[in-house]
Amino acid sequence: MKELENYILKYGKVLSNDILKVDSFLNQQIDINLLELLASKWYQEFKDKNITKILTIEASGIALATLTAYKFNVHLVFAKKSKSSNMSDNLYKAKVFSYTHHINNEIYVDKAYLNEFDNVLIIDDFLANGEAVTGLINLTRQANAKVVGVGIAIEKGFQKAGDILRNKGLNVKSLAIIDKMDEITKEIVFREL
Amino acid sequence: MKELENYILKYGKVLSNDILKVDSFLNQQIDINLLELLASKWYQEFKDKNITKILTIEASGIALATLTAYKFNVHLVFAKKSKSSNMSDNLYKAKVFSYTHHINNEIYVDKAYLNEFDNVLIIDDFLANGEAVTGLINLTRQANAKVVGVGIAIEKGFQKAGDILRNKGLNVKSLAIIDKMDEITKEIVFREL
Repeated sequence: MKELENYILKYGKVLSNDILKVDSFLNQQIDINLLELLASKWYQEFKDKNITKILTIEASGIALATLTAYKFNVHLVFAKKSKSSNMSDNLYKAKVFSYTHHINNEIYVDKAYLNEFDNVLIIDDFLANGEAVTGLINLTRQANAKVVGVGIAIEKGFQKAGDILRNKGLNVKSLAIIDKMDEITKEIVFREL
Repeated sequence: MKELENYILKYGKVLSNDILKVDSFLNQQIDINLLELLASKWYQEFKDKNITKILTIEASGIALATLTAYKFNVHLVFAKKSKSSNMSDNLYKAKVFSYTHHINNEIYVDKAYLNEFDNVLIIDDFLANGEAVTGLINLTRQANAKVVGVGIAIEKGFQKAGDILRNKGLNVKSLAIIDKMDEITKEIVFREL
């Protein structure tokens, strides 16, 4: 998606060969016009698939997932990274390693919010090693719900998780795929979509 | 707001005299139709105030803040509860105690995303002891930005933070205010708005 690539080129910061900072428009500060473009694109892609739920993980996926749920007019569900005192014990659980924070998280969704009749579209801001998305797929399958697709804003193509998931037959719709970043020249190479 | 009160009466769970569980429509699972009603109400309330940013705190405020930012067509900024490895050190910081998780958090906003020209509408799902909102007001004022108002979905009126903030002159627009909950009878008493 050209608009997203342009935002990345204009406002993104290549911090290293594998870390791209997009805090100014996608994460921490969120450009609502860009967000609408992304949500509309996923809506176009999946609108005939009878999506019943949008699933994401706190925190940075929530904004994207909210506007996507608004376009589809379906409930949004987000997996939590910690159990708060008022959560039930009736939970789907999956283990997820966070490369950003360098810790293992367990993620949770209350069993009341995913069921076997759900057609789930998973939404997240980044796909790199695929830990979060794999955890969300795992939760969805525990509920016997169907993973209809995965909508990702920025995929780090060089970290392969997107291609691995596609090879397993999943419909992964990334709106920008970065095949290479150079921490010296700051060059970003996008995959043709 | 009658619609929100009806959701609370129909789907909310009184877990104790001061804990209301709204996971099924506002938190974890989010009813997008209700979310739009809430965002539209805040838009009506603050649309003439030249709002330039919507500010919230991760994670449960983000969905509400996203649709509100969409209505206002302005950027959304969310304060973070932990420093990730790719955040800058150029941050506004405030201390916030979480009664849900029983820990002290420091919250952060990158200085690039709030400035003295901003008219900020703070959005959050709950107002109880006021820790999160007070922290967000603190961050906004560090940036010399103006706190135009505070939009809250559910205020626990019996915990007084809303009235304290109003007495300080802040425009706190809560869409449902609970003055009493009874863990035995499950009765919820709303304040007339």
